[in-house]
Amino acid sequence: MSKNTIKWTKRDKLKTKPDESTLPFGKIFTDYMMKMRYEAGSGWSDPEIVPYGPIELDPAAMVLHYGQTVFEGLKAYRNENGDVQLFRPEENMKRMNRSHRRMSIPEFDGETVLKALSQLIDIEKDWVPSVEGTSLYVRPFVISTQTHLAVHPSDSYEFYIILSPVGSYYPEGINPVKIQVEDEFTRAVKGGTGTAKTGGNYSAGYNAQEKASKSGHAQVLWLDAIEKQYIEEVGSMNVFFKINGEIVTPALSGSILEGVTRKSIIELLHSWEIPVMERKISIQELIQAQKNGTLEEAFGAGTAAVVSPIGSFTYKGVAYKVQDGETGSLTKKLYDTVTGIQTGKLDDPFGWTKVIHV
Amino acid sequence: MSKNTIKWTKRDKLKTKPDESTLPFGKIFTDYMMKMRYEAGSGWSDPEIVPYGPIELDPAAMVLHYGQTVFEGLKAYRNENGDVQLFRPEENMKRMNRSHRRMSIPEFDGETVLKALSQLIDIEKDWVPSVEGTSLYVRPFVISTQTHLAVHPSDSYEFYIILSPVGSYYPEGINPVKIQVEDEFTRAVKGGTGTAKTGGNYSAGYNAQEKASKSGHAQVLWLDAIEKQYIEEVGSMNVFFKINGEIVTPALSGSILEGVTRKSIIELLHSWEIPVMERKISIQELIQAQKNGTLEEAFGAGTAAVVSPIGSFTYKGVAYKVQDGETGSLTKKLYDTVTGIQTGKLDDPFGWTKVIHV
Ligand SMILES: Cc1ncc(COP(=O)(O)O)c(C=O)c1O
Ligand SMILES: Cc1ncc(COP(=O)(O)O)c(C=O)c1O
Repeated sequence: MSKNTIKWTKRDKLKTKPDESTLPFGKIFTDYMMKMRYEAGSGWSDPEIVPYGPIELDPAAMVLHYGQTVFEGLKAYRNENGDVQLFRPEENMKRMNRSHRRMSIPEFDGETVLKALSQLIDIEKDWVPSVEGTSLYVRPFVISTQTHLAVHPSDSYEFYIILSPVGSYYPEGINPVKIQVEDEFTRAVKGGTGTAKTGGNYSAGYNAQEKASKSGHAQVLWLDAIEKQYIEEVGSMNVFFKINGEIVTPALSGSILEGVTRKSIIELLHSWEIPVMERKISIQELIQAQKNGTLEEAFGAGTAAVVSPIGSFTYKGVAYKVQDGETGSLTKKLYDTVTGIQTGKLDDPFGWTKVIHV
Repeated sequence: MSKNTIKWTKRDKLKTKPDESTLPFGKIFTDYMMKMRYEAGSGWSDPEIVPYGPIELDPAAMVLHYGQTVFEGLKAYRNENGDVQLFRPEENMKRMNRSHRRMSIPEFDGETVLKALSQLIDIEKDWVPSVEGTSLYVRPFVISTQTHLAVHPSDSYEFYIILSPVGSYYPEGINPVKIQVEDEFTRAVKGGTGTAKTGGNYSAGYNAQEKASKSGHAQVLWLDAIEKQYIEEVGSMNVFFKINGEIVTPALSGSILEGVTRKSIIELLHSWEIPVMERKISIQELIQAQKNGTLEEAFGAGTAAVVSPIGSFTYKGVAYKVQDGETGSLTKKLYDTVTGIQTGKLDDPFGWTKVIHV
């Protein structure tokens, strides 16, 4: 694809780039963004690149009232050769279209958007940081823009991709966190929107998150909404346990988001011939394993942290330590391998990374 | 409160008012809107009245990503004296603050907002239509505006009230509709956000709504998410049944929105000494009552339609008629009484209506 196939509106003055060693998460944005529109009748427009800047919405725009939105999150890394590479971006495009279906938003062509994203990142390549642990966070999102207060799917949408250089999730080294098992609030239920990456799922968790942090916990461990027994996710991550030598992660039950990191970890474990089970796992089973010493490791998995070791979990006021509260050796190995592949420090036998060539 | 206590920024030119006899729902907006802001540290600002016009948001504004929003809906009516009156607006303010708590949005002073709303409606009084069945729809809404992609409650918000003159819900007379009992998708679950009026609850229902309308049904009848047995709501309305002389409506179980219309109907029925039960009611019980002839009436209740008679319901492909499919006599009486009080045609022994005096 040549540089001329996508419209690019330039800005007069570029922003000053931030200090790479103190990057926050999701607060600094690059000079440009991708934009494309949907109109009933004509479908999705061609993507174009425009200066990063405010979105104007009518006060009656549907997104402000009925939450018909979808987003994604992935990262671009500076590799050892100084090139920029993405990690499994086609998985994010596929998941985004699945989210669109659940939210009654028209699907789009993932390849077209990936090409536009490559071009956007190429334009913004000087924004991709190279300090250890840093990356360029990529946030595609879609909003419903019809000006109408009726409760039905919008007839127009806007699709954006914005880019944010982000610091290391672990500036002081990977460290296990305390989590709180939530037994009052729920994140999602089968038949609801839990399998989609849509806004409402996230703000729905704020009450529980505030409760957890007030009691000194970093994240919420979500249980299923129906029996309040089965483990679903931790914060905005999928969750894994090592019990008696075997890796267990909750099966995709209809209320869990299918993480790209989760999928990659399962594929890695298979390649290492380590048994991994996708099945139901109850909080009672977890407590039992902790008590009899077979709970060997526990960690969350998602794009932001890649792997986040769990040091202890609190259920109904009782705290249960995961072994000695240190990062487990398999957890560490998975973190090193996934980040190594993502940044090009390690070989990529799976073909997961995509170097940006425009 | 004097006219001078609220800041009012005037516009140069007023819009042309629409034809009152062909008003759509929620597409036409008045000249002005109310606006107030929240900033961490300083709290909610004073409300002000500004020209109706676009809202500018940074592409990273939280509302576009994590769905932290709340809204309300109520109506202002032109009464027999030509004055404008609201129906139980303090109930909407209370519910809005309950929604705020569930969505981790700071609460506001309901009285301050009601005073500002009165002033806004007074300014816009020529927009309140007087044709039978018409009204001025009032839409308060709050959006989270912090520019940050982190998943946590925003530190800034904007609160708007916009006004839309709307036509009769029943331009051709009140008419029973066919509804579809949804047994796959869910609207809400205990511990989730179903008791709050937040955007995500509404777009979550679009898949089911599209399914229902494809099979010729006007609305979805929602079942509980856990057992898929107990009736919750119909579309965006609460639901009532008359079974064997007794009125039954689902009890507020933690996943149902507490409607102002529902509350008013229960209070009216009490005043008429008609037995009304707030309890669990299963779809099987409803089918049983239909089969043995004791299901006498069924209707939805909400601000938009006030009362919406149900002519039949379809469950797992089988359609069940509610009596002869006509509007029941109690349904009709409730509709006439509530709309009569709302518009000032009937006495208001409950003190439900508030005439706008500024
Ligand atoms: C709810 C939820 N679960 C899990 C994940 C992990 O998915 P991924 O590995 O694709 O980042 C995410 C975030 O991305 C999420 O939002
Ligand atoms: C989900 C839901 N249920 C019920 C209602 C009825 O509430 P009210 O009578 O206050 O309009 C509404 C709408 O207003 C609603 O959105």
